[in-house]
Amino acid sequence: MMTLDETVAFLEREFPQIHHGGRHYHLEAVGLLTARMRMDHHDRFLRPGGTVSGPAMMTLADLALYAAILANLGPVALAVTTNLSFNFLRRPGPNGLVGEARLLKLGRRLAVGEVLITALGSSDLVCHATGTYAIPPER
Amino acid sequence: MMTLDETVAFLEREFPQIHHGGRHYHLEAVGLLTARMRMDHHDRFLRPGGTVSGPAMMTLADLALYAAILANLGPVALAVTTNLSFNFLRRPGPNGLVGEARLLKLGRRLAVGEVLITALGSSDLVCHATGTYAIPPER
Amino acid sequence: MMTLDETVAFLEREFPQIHHGGRHYHLEAVGLLTARMRMDHHDRFLRPGGTVSGPAMMTLADLALYAAILANLGPVALAVTTNLSFNFLRRPGPNGLVGEARLLKLGRRLAVGEVLITALGSSDLVCHATGTYAIPPER
Amino acid sequence: MMTLDETVAFLEREFPQIHHGGRHYHLEAVGLLTARMRMDHHDRFLRPGGTVSGPAMMTLADLALYAAILANLGPVALAVTTNLSFNFLRRPGPNGLVGEARLLKLGRRLAVGEVLITALGSSDLVCHATGTYAIPPER
Repeated sequence: MMTLDETVAFLEREFPQIHHGGRHYHLEAVGLLTARMRMDHHDRFLRPGGTVSGPAMMTLADLALYAAILANLGPVALAVTTNLSFNFLRRPGPNGLVGEARLLKLGRRLAVGEVLITALGSSDLVCHATGTYAIPPER
Repeated sequence: MMTLDETVAFLEREFPQIHHGGRHYHLEAVGLLTARMRMDHHDRFLRPGGTVSGPAMMTLADLALYAAILANLGPVALAVTTNLSFNFLRRPGPNGLVGEARLLKLGRRLAVGEVLITALGSSDLVCHATGTYAIPPER
Repeated sequence: MMTLDETVAFLEREFPQIHHGGRHYHLEAVGLLTARMRMDHHDRFLRPGGTVSGPAMMTLADLALYAAILANLGPVALAVTTNLSFNFLRRPGPNGLVGEARLLKLGRRLAVGEVLITALGSSDLVCHATGTYAIPPER
Repeated sequence: MMTLDETVAFLEREFPQIHHGGRHYHLEAVGLLTARMRMDHHDRFLRPGGTVSGPAMMTLADLALYAAILANLGPVALAVTTNLSFNFLRRPGPNGLVGEARLLKLGRRLAVGEVLITALGSSDLVCHATGTYAIPPER
């Protein structure tokens, strides 16, 4: 397994687009089959009415799952997203968000996980996501 | 909230098709936004190779979520399944299964939940499901 | 590609559980990335109120996609279902159903397809499904 | 039904965030239960390797479905996305994209649709999406 610092460094180097538009997505923790990604509040994520946009939440979920796979497979892995499914549960107010990713399966060829997204400082779920990732055979 | 006995009695009366082909699906527990449904082993659930069929797991997930909604909304509710999504994680051997349902949202019009399915006596996930149910307005 | 007769013969031999409970599922056609599966009406598929059960539709969708993959990959393939997602659109009356499967991708490692389910003799959609299948590497 | 011009005008007025970061999303056509949305090529949509990002495709799918609902329900409607599911089929090159949305159901309380995303000038599918939207009761 990679440490948090190693995973962050890998993302900075290989995945700089995570910071396109500003440094708002931050990997906070990695663990056995898990990762926690934080999205800071920023006006560019807002929709009229002051709620956070769907694409901002979808990006957070994908990043959190990708980080969990990366930390648990090591830096060689370049997993490819094949499926993402989202249930939007409540409209999040103008706030940062936290995505807690948990891998349900980490196989040789496929990884499957779920993400629970809550508003920063709240325990109310705003979105639940599941994702499937193909693991390249050459690793 | 309905008790376990009340929920079981309601299912027996209004949903007898749960026992079509034999009494193999059993509601074991209900709680705040949760329900646990057990599927006993039976040859009719098997596939060549000795694994449990996809439809048997899909039925278990749907029943577990339906029971969680029913127990938490009361006997008036007749929720209608609008979406079910399944990630099949491991092939379950010839064994009974347990579905642990948890409602992520129980709104006035929509309920959303997830189900973790494991083999009886094991903690390995074999299937993860999410479902959405429309709550009729007349309740 | 396999012909319709070859695909039916393969299913009869390798997948006899398709007829568990009676011969109600019939492969009607296969084509380039497509297959059509029919489910005849039978009381065992009904729910109170006279509608067709969700598991009956879910089985039809999975079989139609499996047949499309089989016919297009050849008899060696033993694809494994990894994801199935269903949107239930209208309650189907007590009638047979038709599932029209179309593969959106048939790669070396993954196949993805969708199924449109209508009542026999109607063009109204009752269910839309998508599925993902892992293709074993040894083929 | 609203015309294309009316739908575009409504989106400009009520949904200006569609143009956040530049005017790259354009509604090209609306029809009976359908809409076509184009995403022009722009560097901000790219990932290393020159492929279009997942969030760019997810935004396109959501917008195309929203426009189809809006055009077919009229300007009162403010549908809320409750579920989005994506199958990513091929990596799109550095190009614009087109999303063809089709509503599978447009009920009083729920709308369900699918979107086929192709690269501009190609017929190869790069992504298939399905979405569910809650229609507010007050309309």
